[in-house]
Amino acid sequence: MPVSVVGVDLGGTNIKAGVCDGDGRVLAKLSIATEGERGPEGVLDRIADAARSAAERAGLRLSDVEAVGVGAPGTMDFEAGVVTIAPNLPGWRDVRLQEGVARRLGVTTVIENDANAAAFGEYWAGAGADADPMVLFTLGTGVGGGIVIGGELLHGASGSAAELGHLIIQFGGRQCGCGNRGCLEAYASATAMVARFREAVRGGRRSSLAEKVRTGEVTAEGIHRAAVAGDELSREVLTETGVLLGYGIVSIVHAVNPQRVVLSGGMIGAGEMLMEPVRRTVREMAFPQAQKRLEVVFARLGGDAGFIGAAGCALRSSATSA
Amino acid sequence: MPVSVVGVDLGGTNIKAGVCDGDGRVLAKLSIATEGERGPEGVLDRIADAARSAAERAGLRLSDVEAVGVGAPGTMDFEAGVVTIAPNLPGWRDVRLQEGVARRLGVTTVIENDANAAAFGEYWAGAGADADPMVLFTLGTGVGGGIVIGGELLHGASGSAAELGHLIIQFGGRQCGCGNRGCLEAYASATAMVARFREAVRGGRRSSLAEKVRTGEVTAEGIHRAAVAGDELSREVLTETGVLLGYGIVSIVHAVNPQRVVLSGGMIGAGEMLMEPVRRTVREMAFPQAQKRLEVVFARLGGDAGFIGAAGCALRSSATSA
Repeated sequence: MPVSVVGVDLGGTNIKAGVCDGDGRVLAKLSIATEGERGPEGVLDRIADAARSAAERAGLRLSDVEAVGVGAPGTMDFEAGVVTIAPNLPGWRDVRLQEGVARRLGVTTVIENDANAAAFGEYWAGAGADADPMVLFTLGTGVGGGIVIGGELLHGASGSAAELGHLIIQFGGRQCGCGNRGCLEAYASATAMVARFREAVRGGRRSSLAEKVRTGEVTAEGIHRAAVAGDELSREVLTETGVLLGYGIVSIVHAVNPQRVVLSGGMIGAGEMLMEPVRRTVREMAFPQAQKRLEVVFARLGGDAGFIGAAGCALRSSATSA
Repeated sequence: MPVSVVGVDLGGTNIKAGVCDGDGRVLAKLSIATEGERGPEGVLDRIADAARSAAERAGLRLSDVEAVGVGAPGTMDFEAGVVTIAPNLPGWRDVRLQEGVARRLGVTTVIENDANAAAFGEYWAGAGADADPMVLFTLGTGVGGGIVIGGELLHGASGSAAELGHLIIQFGGRQCGCGNRGCLEAYASATAMVARFREAVRGGRRSSLAEKVRTGEVTAEGIHRAAVAGDELSREVLTETGVLLGYGIVSIVHAVNPQRVVLSGGMIGAGEMLMEPVRRTVREMAFPQAQKRLEVVFARLGGDAGFIGAAGCALRSSATSA
C-alpha cells in the first residue's frame, strides 16, 4: 500500500486538513471552522474531526495513515509536544497538542509551528524543492518564516528559530507589535504597509484611496488594486514595501546564504509590483558570492502549504524514527 | 598512536600553525611572517614550512599527521578548494590553496574561511563547546562570523554564510566598506567605533582624547583605556558600541535561535564595558522563548582559534570521509 500521511493546519479561524502521498501530492483536503471559543479541548476535538474527515475523503481509514502532523500558531515546546501560548486561540496556554491529537486518533502525531510547517511544505512539494538552504517568509498581518537546512527545519536551541519578522532593520525605528523598534514586521507586513500609506495621506499626499483613509477602510489588497489602477501613492508605497522587505532578505542572505528565498502569504497577491523591488534590492545589496546560486521566488502551494508541510514533517519524523 | 592534526591560520601579516590532538588541545604552535609580497606560490611555500615546523616541534613527522586544515581570508570556492579572492594577500585570485598545500605536504588538506575556522575552533575546544546552534562574531577592523549548527559549520549555498558584519541594522544608515549602507560592521567594528568617537569630538564633545583626534591617533584600545581612566565620552561610545552590536545579535538570535553567541577578536579587550550593554540589549529585545537557553560569552582561544579550528575542520572531514 502506498504511503499516505495526514496534515492539519490549525488557524485562529479555520482548520485545514489534507492527506498527502509520499511525495507531497494532495489526495484529499477540507477546511472547517476552528470554533476557538470551545477552548483547547473542543479545538482538539475539531482537529481530530478534520483529520478523520480528510482520511475518509481520501478513501482511507486512519489506521492506514503513516502519521499525522499538526501545524499550530504560537510558541511551542517541541520536546514536550506542548503549545505554550497561542495568542489567536482563546485559552491556549500549555496545551498538550501532540498527546491530545495522538490520543484522539490513535496515530503517531508530530507538531510543528505554522510558519515552519508552511516552509517545510514549500520545500517538500512547492517552490522551495531541493533548495539548500531554503528560507521562507510569510507576509501577511505579521511577518514570519521558516528555514530549512540540509532538508531539516531549523528549530534552534529552544524552538524559536526563523522569527524573521523580528530581524532589526532600523534600530530605534518604527514600533513593532512585539514591543521592539525597527523590526522587519514593523515595515513590511500588510499592517505596516497600510500604516505607512495612511501616514502619507495624512501628511498631505494625494491618492484615490484618500477617502478610505478617513473611513479606516484601507487594506493591503486595496493598495495593490489602486496601484494597478494607476494611483501613484499606492504604487510608491508598494514599491517601498518591496525595498524594505529586501533589506530583511539581504540580512538573511548574509546570515545563512540560502539557495532559495520563498515569499508566501497574502501580500504576494501584489505579484511583480512587490517582487521587482525585492529582487532589485537583493541584487544591489547582497554579496555577489552569496547571489551565485540565489533565487527569490513566490510560494506555489498557497493556503495548502501549512497542512502539506505538517504532513511532510510527520512523514519525515516517522521515517527517521522507524 | 593518538590522533594529531595540523591547523594553519593564514593572515595578511602572519601565518600561525599548530598541532592539535583529537580533542583540540594544542601540542605545539608557532607563527611566521606571511611575506605576502612573494605572491601566491611563495605564500603556499610559507604555509607548508609552517605546517612542517609545527609538526616537528610536536615531535611528529607529517606522515604521522591525520590531516592539515588551512583557514584563509577572503572568498572561497569550497568544492574546488580555491581562494577566489583575498584582498589582504597580493595577487591572490583563484589560488588553488587546497591542492597547493596538499601537494607540498603529501597530506590530506582541507580549507576553510578564516572566520568560520575561528568559529569551529571555539566550538571544538573553546567557549562554544557543545552549543547548538553556536554563533561566533569576530570583532576587529571589520566584523565577521561563523555559525555552527548540529556540530557542522554552516556554509550555505555558495560558501558565503555568516557574513555577520553585513546584517543590515539601519537601512539608509552609515556607509559600510562593502558599499552598502547600514551594515552592522559600519556601526560596531573597531573602525566604526573610532569613527563615531571622532565625529563626537568634532561635534564639540569633550574628551581626554581630543588632541589625539586632531592628530589621527585614536584607536579602539585607546578609547577603552580612556574609558577605564574615566573619560565620559569614551565610556559612552563604548557602551553605544555594545548596544549597536546587540542589535545585530538580536537579529541573529531571531534568525537561528543559538544556544551560545561567542564574541571574539580585538574588540573583546574592552571586557565588561562592551559585554554589559551587549547583554542588556539582547535581554531587553530578544524574544523570551529565544533566550531560554541563550548565553552570550567571550571567546576563550584568543589568536589560536583560527589554527585550532582549521585543525578541527580537517579532522572532522577526514573522520567523515574515512
